Amino acid sequence: MISFECDYLLGAHPEILKRLSETNFESLAGYGADKYCDSAKEKIKAICDCENADVEFVVGGTQTNALVISTMLKDYEGVVSAKTGHVSVHEAGAIEYTGHKVLEIPQNNGKISADVLKKYIKDFYDDGSYTHMVFPGMVYLSHPTEYGTLYTKKELEDIKSVCSEYDIPLFLDGARLGYGLMSNDTDLTIKDIARICDVFYIGGTKVGALCGEAVVFTKSNKPKNFITSVKKRGALLAKGRLLGIQFDTLFTDDLYFKISKNAIDMAEKMKNIFIKKGYTFFIDSPTNQQFIVLENSCMEKLKQFVSFSFWEKYDENHTVVRFATSWATTENDLIELEKALDSI
Amino acid sequence: MISFECDYLLGAHPEILKRLSETNFESLAGYGADKYCDSAKEKIKAICDCENADVEFVVGGTQTNALVISTMLKDYEGVVSAKTGHVSVHEAGAIEYTGHKVLEIPQNNGKISADVLKKYIKDFYDDGSYTHMVFPGMVYLSHPTEYGTLYTKKELEDIKSVCSEYDIPLFLDGARLGYGLMSNDTDLTIKDIARICDVFYIGGTKVGALCGEAVVFTKSNKPKNFITSVKKRGALLAKGRLLGIQFDTLFTDDLYFKISKNAIDMAEKMKNIFIKKGYTFFIDSPTNQQFIVLENSCMEKLKQFVSFSFWEKYDENHTVVRFATSWATTENDLIELEKALDSI
Amino acid sequence: MISFECDYLLGAHPEILKRLSETNFESLAGYGADKYCDSAKEKIKAICDCENADVEFVVGGTQTNALVISTMLKDYEGVVSAKTGHVSVHEAGAIEYTGHKVLEIPQNNGKISADVLKKYIKDFYDDGSYTHMVFPGMVYLSHPTEYGTLYTKKELEDIKSVCSEYDIPLFLDGARLGYGLMSNDTDLTIKDIARICDVFYIGGTKVGALCGEAVVFTKSNKPKNFITSVKKRGALLAKGRLLGIQFDTLFTDDLYFKISKNAIDMAEKMKNIFIKKGYTFFIDSPTNQQFIVLENSCMEKLKQFVSFSFWEKYDENHTVVRFATSWATTENDLIELEKALDSI
Amino acid sequence: MISFECDYLLGAHPEILKRLSETNFESLAGYGADKYCDSAKEKIKAICDCENADVEFVVGGTQTNALVISTMLKDYEGVVSAKTGHVSVHEAGAIEYTGHKVLEIPQNNGKISADVLKKYIKDFYDDGSYTHMVFPGMVYLSHPTEYGTLYTKKELEDIKSVCSEYDIPLFLDGARLGYGLMSNDTDLTIKDIARICDVFYIGGTKVGALCGEAVVFTKSNKPKNFITSVKKRGALLAKGRLLGIQFDTLFTDDLYFKISKNAIDMAEKMKNIFIKKGYTFFIDSPTNQQFIVLENSCMEKLKQFVSFSFWEKYDENHTVVRFATSWATTENDLIELEKALDSI
Repeated sequence: MISFECDYLLGAHPEILKRLSETNFESLAGYGADKYCDSAKEKIKAICDCENADVEFVVGGTQTNALVISTMLKDYEGVVSAKTGHVSVHEAGAIEYTGHKVLEIPQNNGKISADVLKKYIKDFYDDGSYTHMVFPGMVYLSHPTEYGTLYTKKELEDIKSVCSEYDIPLFLDGARLGYGLMSNDTDLTIKDIARICDVFYIGGTKVGALCGEAVVFTKSNKPKNFITSVKKRGALLAKGRLLGIQFDTLFTDDLYFKISKNAIDMAEKMKNIFIKKGYTFFIDSPTNQQFIVLENSCMEKLKQFVSFSFWEKYDENHTVVRFATSWATTENDLIELEKALDSI
Repeated sequence: MISFECDYLLGAHPEILKRLSETNFESLAGYGADKYCDSAKEKIKAICDCENADVEFVVGGTQTNALVISTMLKDYEGVVSAKTGHVSVHEAGAIEYTGHKVLEIPQNNGKISADVLKKYIKDFYDDGSYTHMVFPGMVYLSHPTEYGTLYTKKELEDIKSVCSEYDIPLFLDGARLGYGLMSNDTDLTIKDIARICDVFYIGGTKVGALCGEAVVFTKSNKPKNFITSVKKRGALLAKGRLLGIQFDTLFTDDLYFKISKNAIDMAEKMKNIFIKKGYTFFIDSPTNQQFIVLENSCMEKLKQFVSFSFWEKYDENHTVVRFATSWATTENDLIELEKALDSI
Repeated sequence: MISFECDYLLGAHPEILKRLSETNFESLAGYGADKYCDSAKEKIKAICDCENADVEFVVGGTQTNALVISTMLKDYEGVVSAKTGHVSVHEAGAIEYTGHKVLEIPQNNGKISADVLKKYIKDFYDDGSYTHMVFPGMVYLSHPTEYGTLYTKKELEDIKSVCSEYDIPLFLDGARLGYGLMSNDTDLTIKDIARICDVFYIGGTKVGALCGEAVVFTKSNKPKNFITSVKKRGALLAKGRLLGIQFDTLFTDDLYFKISKNAIDMAEKMKNIFIKKGYTFFIDSPTNQQFIVLENSCMEKLKQFVSFSFWEKYDENHTVVRFATSWATTENDLIELEKALDSI
Repeated sequence: MISFECDYLLGAHPEILKRLSETNFESLAGYGADKYCDSAKEKIKAICDCENADVEFVVGGTQTNALVISTMLKDYEGVVSAKTGHVSVHEAGAIEYTGHKVLEIPQNNGKISADVLKKYIKDFYDDGSYTHMVFPGMVYLSHPTEYGTLYTKKELEDIKSVCSEYDIPLFLDGARLGYGLMSNDTDLTIKDIARICDVFYIGGTKVGALCGEAVVFTKSNKPKNFITSVKKRGALLAKGRLLGIQFDTLFTDDLYFKISKNAIDMAEKMKNIFIKKGYTFFIDSPTNQQFIVLENSCMEKLKQFVSFSFWEKYDENHTVVRFATSWATTENDLIELEKALDSI
């Protein structure tokens, strides 16, 4: 059965496996001190046009969020996030586990706005009892968001302006960054993101790697003795080569961008299939995640041919479901999807 | 200048100071193992009609909340609270500091409802990805709430029913419990509270003590080796007598209830003064905290004669302010208030 | 029965109770923003000859240690302490609860030495894998130590030199500071301590207060937004006056020093009683805690007349016990002790 | 240059890479719910002869230690470990980061003994103030230890007896378990370990995997909702297949044991080379880590031909160094080593 359930169902891009095999018997230093980590870091810095950046590799996304947030916040601070942010909802309290509150603010299709953020922080400092409250100490946003939506350059710059006004860093969770960068509907490049954000990460797990996220500190702001803080959180990989080789491969010959582009191309085609057949979209998503409103009986039938994700109940008779393409989705997958839709 | 700013502006009820003096040269065991702690515990158990209760004394409210919540939650759980709950907003992230998330749910005048709670927990378990989320592991509510409002017996029992259905404890923050119990508009006795809740605390700090809250575990559910957990959190008072003597005094001859009653009586009179003069109430509060909507220029004038608390902005021209009575408010304070209102 | 069990068996110095009563009906701001806190801070700064010091009041010692250590350490650091240090042994893991390791080093009668400390830190940085280890980020010592012993000015300055060399703060736990300062066998004044240490605290609980410790940050190094960090740890007292008035009283007319002196005078007399009767001292302590080696059967008999603390087993037939004098010990207590010794 | 620096310098056993490639385009559920994880778990349970065991896969060793310890300890407990234990020294305070103390006890060549353990716990409960101390709540030991040494079956059973007496679990860190099991000098099988210990882990990272440790809970004692606790610590791998496939491969056709055996065979040969040439051993290690005392000038010369690890200074003129073999060490490596030794 073909699957559009999520973007981490398969292994890794074959080029990654090939490189892992080719380098397998090279004797390399542990804990990220190997030459592939070094090479991958240089490539990422170049692509970000940010020679002073500090790049670090971490195994997974929740780990990265908890690590970045807890090492950059001060004791009395929390992180501001959309109520629907991954750190707010789907990380089992990993941020709170580090002793810091996630300060939830209202969102729209997964996005926060500079205005809402500004009002939140201003109200905080206007409140007479703010010393008894958690200080907003960082802004977290995901791009693409959990709803597949994207910030425009203007929106991101406006949010950054608020951060600058209050001297707090802006952190962009790029678990699906490639799919955002390759969207047909974005004016944000990775260089823009590196220029605007104080720290962000380039997701590997959902974009063709077996595992791994590349954190980029863009403003000479990597926390001191960071490796020790990584170790303290159990997040330091002994065979750092596993991450170095993967990212080195992804950032050789634009592989990361090419495979991200495939997901977008496939998503656009998939969108057209659904449009053609008259389906209703829950959100207008410009990335690899598409949210469709299905009539319940139709959903049950479709399940027999294609797998997809339950997103949320729409009403008594309808359900929102998610179809995700990925670096590995093929034209054939779409043909099968169309057949399935025809058959129900 | 007379003050209605809050209910912890003065020292302690004189009887407490008297007892501290009388017992001062008695040589007593430390850390709560003295006879006054024992006596106070017995009195509280009797008044709660709960002979199997375990009573423990803690210095302050935030400390109590963090201690109770973090020792009763399991690793994968968080505490459900009204978005306006003290633990959500005004404790500087003390709960998150223990590694647990506060799960905020909608509220009405500071109160949560069984229905909203039920829906929240049901939706949680209906969500396919709930193992990646923080489990609702306890319900926290304050009574009186931060808005001075009260739960009815029926409301509290309904909330407890939801807790029972999901086998999670109900914790009642009684920082101002006396003022709730003595309200003219309540059908909840302390015995009801002890019967319904799994754990609650009787606030001393805001009801006539220098400091101190009495935690009551009602269902043979005091966490094992609790004293060690208290010590671990830096919350174990060496001279436990300071808490024991205060609570022993407060629960001798119903002092706690009598002085709470005074606050209610004074609040009712104060309410009438405001009503008589045509002021608008922000909330209909049956306890010692009264919330009035003042025209801004009127507020500025009043400030010169009486102190009160800023609560929140109402609109461009009006502000919500809080007037609190306490165990120590006198008829004369009200006469002065009335004069002040007349003069502006 | 007379008691030498510890120095926190009685209530407070009567002058403190008197001042609490006299000020009881003054309406004062909460959370340490009252005039008595201000006054006490000024007096402490003056007595320390350290006008730029920041003084903060905290309820108890373990709380103070956890608060100071966790707000001053960086993420990747731990605190170095004697293996017998209070933070290592008797605080139920309160430091670890904040996420930081206590790095234990060898001690002698409760004291650490500059040499041992220097070697420890040097070895740390000489170890090739130190980035996988907890960095020494602060030095903690108690003065008097848990064994009643004292550092000399030279010893403290030497330890501070090591701290300065590695740019880490020196924190002195002065839970019994008065008894150290008034010892006949010390060359350290409170001014010296303020000059040498980066942060220290003046113990109130064991020196005549109902509760309370005064933390002194001596080098314009109070952590930013400290009050929020205090609140976050549940350590912010609502009625801060309780601490302010007590310390204001203790530092008026040298009360703190006078009552500390009493404990020392009584300890010296007690020492002589034991010497005269041929008892063996476990440690030569110059402060209010005296450690005697008792033959077991003798110990059992003595218990019937006087209370004291078990310290540790000496050998099969002997036990080390502790006799503590305090601000409240009287000549009469000593007469009773002597009688008791005569009778066994 | 040939390297004996550690046992995680190369990639993975080729069979693992082969299996990763073969399964790469299978669409598999995330977070450990795939068939390869299931299969690997079954194989491990069979090999442990423990059908009721719960097996979970985690990326790295420090992460595993922190996860197991913090989910199995109660709030008031710490973990007992050799002073030289990995959790005590080389995890950057990862255990303390979870809020729990590591209770260090004396060791001998990396091993703890039942007698020392028993005395430690007995003394704890004999201490009158133990409620102010961290309870011993678990025993941690590594096998092989950090010094390459091994427990005998009798020693492990004796330690378990002490644990049972005090009703606390025994946790065995098997980061190098294969090398222990295949030692010529052990009477402990994996079945014995599963029978004796309450929880242990089978190290993959150091025994042929790219990453991964398999935790085995042997007594139906896996913490409830464990996956959520894993997620909370940022330790849940999205593509769990990466761990499942690796362990499934390692436990197919005894690959884990065969490659561990290679390391032992090579270590024995290496040992003989050193013995033949008259070198002094620091410790008599029966596993893959060998500790040699080198004269400093000799060490400097050898460095030019072979890489190895600095262990510790022996005296002014000598250094202890470590040579580690692994699953991948070849006869040729030993020939090169011998040549290098001849040449200096």
